[in-house]
Amino acid sequence: MSDAQRPSTPTLDRVSVPADLKGMSDSDLKRVASELRSETISAVSQTGGHLGAGLGVVELTVALHAVFDTPRDRLIWDVSHQTYPHKILTGRRDRIRTLRQKGGLSGFTKRSESPFDPFGAAHSSTSISAALGFSVARDLGGAPDPSLGDAIAVIGDGSMSAGMAFEAMNNAGHLGKRLFVILNDNEMSIAPPVGALSSYLSRLYANAPFQELKAAAKGAVSFLPSPLQEGAKRAKEMLKGLAVGGTLFEELGFSYIGPIDGHDMDQLLSVLRTVKSRATGPVLIHAITQKGKGYAPAEAAVDRGHATAKFDLVTGKQAKAKSNAPSYTGVFAKALLDAAARDDKVVAVTAAMPDGTGLNLFAERYPSRCFDVGIAEQHGVTFAAGLAAGGMKPFCAMYSTFLQRGYDQVVHDVAIQRLPVRFAIDRAGLVGADGATHAGSFDVAFLANLPGFVVMAAADEAELVHMVATAVAHDDGPIAFRYPRGEGVGVEMPLQGVPLEIGKGRLIQSGSRVAILSFGTRLEEVKKAAEALSARGITPTIADARFAKPLDRAMILDLAQTHEALITIEEGAIGGFGSHVADLLANEGMFDHGLKFRTMVLPDIFIDQASPEDMYRTAALSAADIEAKVLSVLGLGDIASKRA
Amino acid sequence: MSDAQRPSTPTLDRVSVPADLKGMSDSDLKRVASELRSETISAVSQTGGHLGAGLGVVELTVALHAVFDTPRDRLIWDVSHQTYPHKILTGRRDRIRTLRQKGGLSGFTKRSESPFDPFGAAHSSTSISAALGFSVARDLGGAPDPSLGDAIAVIGDGSMSAGMAFEAMNNAGHLGKRLFVILNDNEMSIAPPVGALSSYLSRLYANAPFQELKAAAKGAVSFLPSPLQEGAKRAKEMLKGLAVGGTLFEELGFSYIGPIDGHDMDQLLSVLRTVKSRATGPVLIHAITQKGKGYAPAEAAVDRGHATAKFDLVTGKQAKAKSNAPSYTGVFAKALLDAAARDDKVVAVTAAMPDGTGLNLFAERYPSRCFDVGIAEQHGVTFAAGLAAGGMKPFCAMYSTFLQRGYDQVVHDVAIQRLPVRFAIDRAGLVGADGATHAGSFDVAFLANLPGFVVMAAADEAELVHMVATAVAHDDGPIAFRYPRGEGVGVEMPLQGVPLEIGKGRLIQSGSRVAILSFGTRLEEVKKAAEALSARGITPTIADARFAKPLDRAMILDLAQTHEALITIEEGAIGGFGSHVADLLANEGMFDHGLKFRTMVLPDIFIDQASPEDMYRTAALSAADIEAKVLSVLGLGDIASKRA
Repeated sequence: MSDAQRPSTPTLDRVSVPADLKGMSDSDLKRVASELRSETISAVSQTGGHLGAGLGVVELTVALHAVFDTPRDRLIWDVSHQTYPHKILTGRRDRIRTLRQKGGLSGFTKRSESPFDPFGAAHSSTSISAALGFSVARDLGGAPDPSLGDAIAVIGDGSMSAGMAFEAMNNAGHLGKRLFVILNDNEMSIAPPVGALSSYLSRLYANAPFQELKAAAKGAVSFLPSPLQEGAKRAKEMLKGLAVGGTLFEELGFSYIGPIDGHDMDQLLSVLRTVKSRATGPVLIHAITQKGKGYAPAEAAVDRGHATAKFDLVTGKQAKAKSNAPSYTGVFAKALLDAAARDDKVVAVTAAMPDGTGLNLFAERYPSRCFDVGIAEQHGVTFAAGLAAGGMKPFCAMYSTFLQRGYDQVVHDVAIQRLPVRFAIDRAGLVGADGATHAGSFDVAFLANLPGFVVMAAADEAELVHMVATAVAHDDGPIAFRYPRGEGVGVEMPLQGVPLEIGKGRLIQSGSRVAILSFGTRLEEVKKAAEALSARGITPTIADARFAKPLDRAMILDLAQTHEALITIEEGAIGGFGSHVADLLANEGMFDHGLKFRTMVLPDIFIDQASPEDMYRTAALSAADIEAKVLSVLGLGDIASKRA
Repeated sequence: MSDAQRPSTPTLDRVSVPADLKGMSDSDLKRVASELRSETISAVSQTGGHLGAGLGVVELTVALHAVFDTPRDRLIWDVSHQTYPHKILTGRRDRIRTLRQKGGLSGFTKRSESPFDPFGAAHSSTSISAALGFSVARDLGGAPDPSLGDAIAVIGDGSMSAGMAFEAMNNAGHLGKRLFVILNDNEMSIAPPVGALSSYLSRLYANAPFQELKAAAKGAVSFLPSPLQEGAKRAKEMLKGLAVGGTLFEELGFSYIGPIDGHDMDQLLSVLRTVKSRATGPVLIHAITQKGKGYAPAEAAVDRGHATAKFDLVTGKQAKAKSNAPSYTGVFAKALLDAAARDDKVVAVTAAMPDGTGLNLFAERYPSRCFDVGIAEQHGVTFAAGLAAGGMKPFCAMYSTFLQRGYDQVVHDVAIQRLPVRFAIDRAGLVGADGATHAGSFDVAFLANLPGFVVMAAADEAELVHMVATAVAHDDGPIAFRYPRGEGVGVEMPLQGVPLEIGKGRLIQSGSRVAILSFGTRLEEVKKAAEALSARGITPTIADARFAKPLDRAMILDLAQTHEALITIEEGAIGGFGSHVADLLANEGMFDHGLKFRTMVLPDIFIDQASPEDMYRTAALSAADIEAKVLSVLGLGDIASKRA
């Protein structure tokens, strides 16, 4: 896009940092918001990314930065995929068209990126806890640079339904410290919201005399007494007078203000100025916004433009790459549907990710057997355990990184009770543009050491189909199978999945000297490496372990005994598959008389956003790295070092 | 105790299973409750265990089993340390004096122990999720033996404050299925409750016209219309008429009934019979009970007889063993107090365990710097991260098993942001009478693979003091130190802790042929094993690794190069310290030419309650096991097999 095609933004151009908003009139602030919306749309049309959420908070972003003193006041965005407008206002406009790219701006807030990002996020519902931490630190004299002012959390209605947000509200209401929570209620996180809290919020604004409130809010500053004149108690009562409903939050110790129109700059400025000057304890401001606001294609989309590829500014048409192979998510979804058709005990649980996990198809076909529990992994896992104890066959479909949220429930409710919950672990491994916060790095390590667990990884999309069948058939305890983001390798698909024998791997290729034992989809890179090696006269044995637990002991010990070297490879952190293999080999005495054993795992760093290929190179898990590892372990390292 | 000393229980003696309650008059049920209380006190006086919670639910236990059809109706006790009366009523009376002992009854509900325990527990706040799973399974035709009836969750006010319970309520209110939640409100979980929800509950019953309600509840059955006559809607309205307040639960989609007197059998029976016959959706019954009810020494105790050793029935005096060495918990608490006196940035966070973690002392001395966030590990961890980002030095003191609840927050909020939160991990390893659910087995594995984390284990109580000092001094990212339940080894204590060099272990004893590399308190057993071995002319080298991350690479590689065999030992599951050492050795080529490497870790089973010594034998981590491992690795296995 040439500069000429960029939107005209004369008022926004005057804003380098939020302090530049301070001298502006309210009319100018409205112009800034309007131009900020155009700039955001323009930027995302070039980069792709999370569009709808940012468009919904344009006015809120401007108003917050205009009223509060960031970065001294700590502004904490929950999930933070809605912060592209915030980044544009806080000194990062010149890099906004590098969003989500290697070396560019993160798609989320990030402490290392800017002092205006005091607390990074990407998972949901953490903002109130963090804001409370800042509030307490301020009162105790914690004083990093810049010194601590107010703490403001901006949290969506979906995020508010998570237990963690409730825990934070419960604690904040108890401590009673000055703290601001902006409930950004757009009735839409990624999927439409579920749960009783969501109905409650809808009732709140369905019943709100919006026009009256609007008038009241606009005049809020003038009719509020000065705290010096009448004292804090009176101020609190006046604030309360602004509320329509909100009992639930009041019961938790918050002053509730709202609902207000989150796109009405006058209301926003008035309410924020009032609470800033008057609040003595925790305040919740309930703002109604519209996801995708102001960009017709996003407003019209089912997901309100939640996440998008690059798109044409005028038509909104996305430039999505054609793919040859189906996505792993799609393969899982279809295999589960097939299983559900044959077995009416098969049910599915998702934690607010029906689309991301492919369970939207299941929900359409079997609405009474699919459960979106909301952003509630803890509950979701134990709910699935209850279903299993009640004789059902629950599939708990979660991203690897989000399963971390239900870890104790996996241990305490599923594993210890040996209940047959099936865990479909999507986004296992590196995930590209979403970066470190979304990587699925630790699941093998944190599951494979749980007694009684079966842990599998699919090497390709056909294997995934068989693993779904294996999970349906496995009724003696929990079972998990992991698969990555993105497309399969294009293998021929079976008509129907066939249950695998638990704890049995498969030999892919017989060779000599060195055996490569792969767990998961790095198998394709292993095959590529083997091809390159064959040109050097080296034919490695290749095996697909399929199971990290139970290990195929016989196969692994045989590989160890018949080869000079054994290399494991997986898309996971240390402590997982390779560690289990090492433990087996060690305690079976395989190292006693020499075995060149190596592990290839994710490196000990959090890898920032980049293309998947870039990330694999950074992780040293690509075909070239495997080839080099083989050469090096065979003492041909000087050859290896000559590789391009 | 001879049978003659046991309480006289003529009515209770008629109850072998709950069905025996069915034919009894309400007067008889009151007698059963009274005798059940005596029997519970008598049993716990002999076994020790959780007394107060069970005494608080004696009437509730009898009423629930009398009204509902257990085990067809699934009765799920939250935490379930209050289930001794339940166990007595459900066919386990003959074994009630084996509570918490090896081979005896578990101190918690357990699926494998009885069909009357449909869902085991020990951690808090899981019961509503599980009950909802049963409710849904019933409606979908899940039908294990026995077939599915109603699902009833009994949950304390402390447990209700956890986010997971909120998530479950939110989901249950949304689904609208028939489901019963008994809120057992005793204003006391382990510690006095904290948080805004607790204040809310207090207001509910402070405002309740108790006497009026009592009368209404007693007559509930007679004045309620038949559902056939007037329909479900009318019944729901009538139920609602029983409520005094409870808006918060109503807003979440539950019918609220209460508060009622949980020790008044007439009220309990009347309300339970009414809801059983009339309810169509989710119902919450708010019962006020008194922890320790009916046993004067428990009622008078600060913790209401929460957990007790064996005691004298008349005086309540507990038979606690004298100890020579201080407990690890006490050593940590004192060391942290000393640190706090020197550094006013040191603050402490506990999740409802001020006594268990020793932070009660901190809270007394520095009330404004100690935060009990309630049963809310997710929030607690991120709150600590916020404190760290705000310039404080937070110590997050949690049991290993409960830290699992905040795992995603450890990864996402602490590790990825490299914030200097200090994790004091108590109860790391095996814990004795609390059994598998409380074992701290997985923390090393799930922390040591997080980039930027420092993970330590104290080998003795003096080491623990130094590790507290190390954590205070370490400001470049997160740091964790683990220590076990129980007493130290009696070493001389330093006057003041001295920060350890990060990633440096220490040599304990120089020897030859075999090196034993210990991580944590198994070091004492290693020393004992070494003594026994010296009698056979074998002097192993002994090292204390101190750090699982970063490893002392130089020390470990040196041990590998100068010994024929290397053995690691830790009180943790596979994937932890030994796995990290194996990975280092493998990728440094230490196995290429032969190294007898062995790992000693917790076995791949969940170990039931027993004495710690028994558990270590089961785990094969005692001195004798270490000795045998050394002999075996040196090829002296025939000698090893001759050991007693």
